[in-house]
Amino acid sequence: MHNICYITSGMPKQVDHAERRRAIADAAVDVIAGGGLDTAGLREVARRAEVTTGALTHYFASKDALLAAAYETVMTGLALRQAATPPAGDPAAFAETLADFLPLDARSAREWRVWLAFSARAVADPELAARHRAHYATIVARLAAQRPGPDAAAFADALVALVDGVALRVLLEPDEWPRARAVATFAVLLAPLFTETAR
Amino acid sequence: MHNICYITSGMPKQVDHAERRRAIADAAVDVIAGGGLDTAGLREVARRAEVTTGALTHYFASKDALLAAAYETVMTGLALRQAATPPAGDPAAFAETLADFLPLDARSAREWRVWLAFSARAVADPELAARHRAHYATIVARLAAQRPGPDAAAFADALVALVDGVALRVLLEPDEWPRARAVATFAVLLAPLFTETAR
Repeated sequence: MHNICYITSGMPKQVDHAERRRAIADAAVDVIAGGGLDTAGLREVARRAEVTTGALTHYFASKDALLAAAYETVMTGLALRQAATPPAGDPAAFAETLADFLPLDARSAREWRVWLAFSARAVADPELAARHRAHYATIVARLAAQRPGPDAAAFADALVALVDGVALRVLLEPDEWPRARAVATFAVLLAPLFTETAR
Repeated sequence: MHNICYITSGMPKQVDHAERRRAIADAAVDVIAGGGLDTAGLREVARRAEVTTGALTHYFASKDALLAAAYETVMTGLALRQAATPPAGDPAAFAETLADFLPLDARSAREWRVWLAFSARAVADPELAARHRAHYATIVARLAAQRPGPDAAAFADALVALVDGVALRVLLEPDEWPRARAVATFAVLLAPLFTETAR
């Protein structure tokens, strides 16, 4: 059973192992997005990943390790999209760029649901809180580097807070929050970001 | 056992009933803030409220009714504080006013922890999501009424998102988020709120 990677694939073991591990972490994201962290037991994730529980424990020794991998999958995905986003030239364009991060489509909603589940868990879980802190530090530093100046850190914090706060509302009130409402919410406060630059 | 309100108090039954109900809901808030929604069973809350489980079920027929009361307790507390807050005259003062809502002290952190736990639960609980939506509609309408104009609703949405987003970071990274960082985060984006007014 533990040699499943040899049996199912002709690819080198290393590659297949990493790929299988990623597929299981992805299945865990699916399960958490569907029913919350409490539903994400090893057995349930194994079923979703279409592997046996024994095969799953070959890749993840504990539920904690599996949940950590699911969290890393989501946060890495968000960070990669942020890294690929060019700075926008005016408030309207920038508001649209920020809206692209929101849970306005099924794929993104899946990630943000997991983000919310882990955020709620992290309040009482120091190890998870440390992971959360590290991801946010990376995101904020990357944003701050895009616009040097004395207020760079505060602007970065404010943008992250705005996106998180609007994402929360989109998640919980999807019918009340079409994309246009989110864009208007961002645009109304973004003016100082551009008047400062023009000085 | 069900007549406990007659036994412990000389006050009229109506008053005592409401007070005892409030005390039990408050105990539920304590339990949720301490360990999350999963720990808030009837037995655990009864223990915290120093009543028997039988007495508790006299006030709350089900766990759902108890959790709903805990949620109402927290959201009503936040709304009351908002109603008592006068509009501020300049960006710096307004940033300080917004910071007063954050989980920067133990009492407020207790409320925001419960807010986060319920927000995470509401994603998969339509009844809870409806309560959440109603509370947010009230908060946003009250904020929008403070500054009439075409952008009133967008400003209100943006302020709520900013406060929620910063509150989340203060909850999860209390050591990284002293009050000054929160105030700076608010202040850096609040300029349009006041330049618009001055037009």
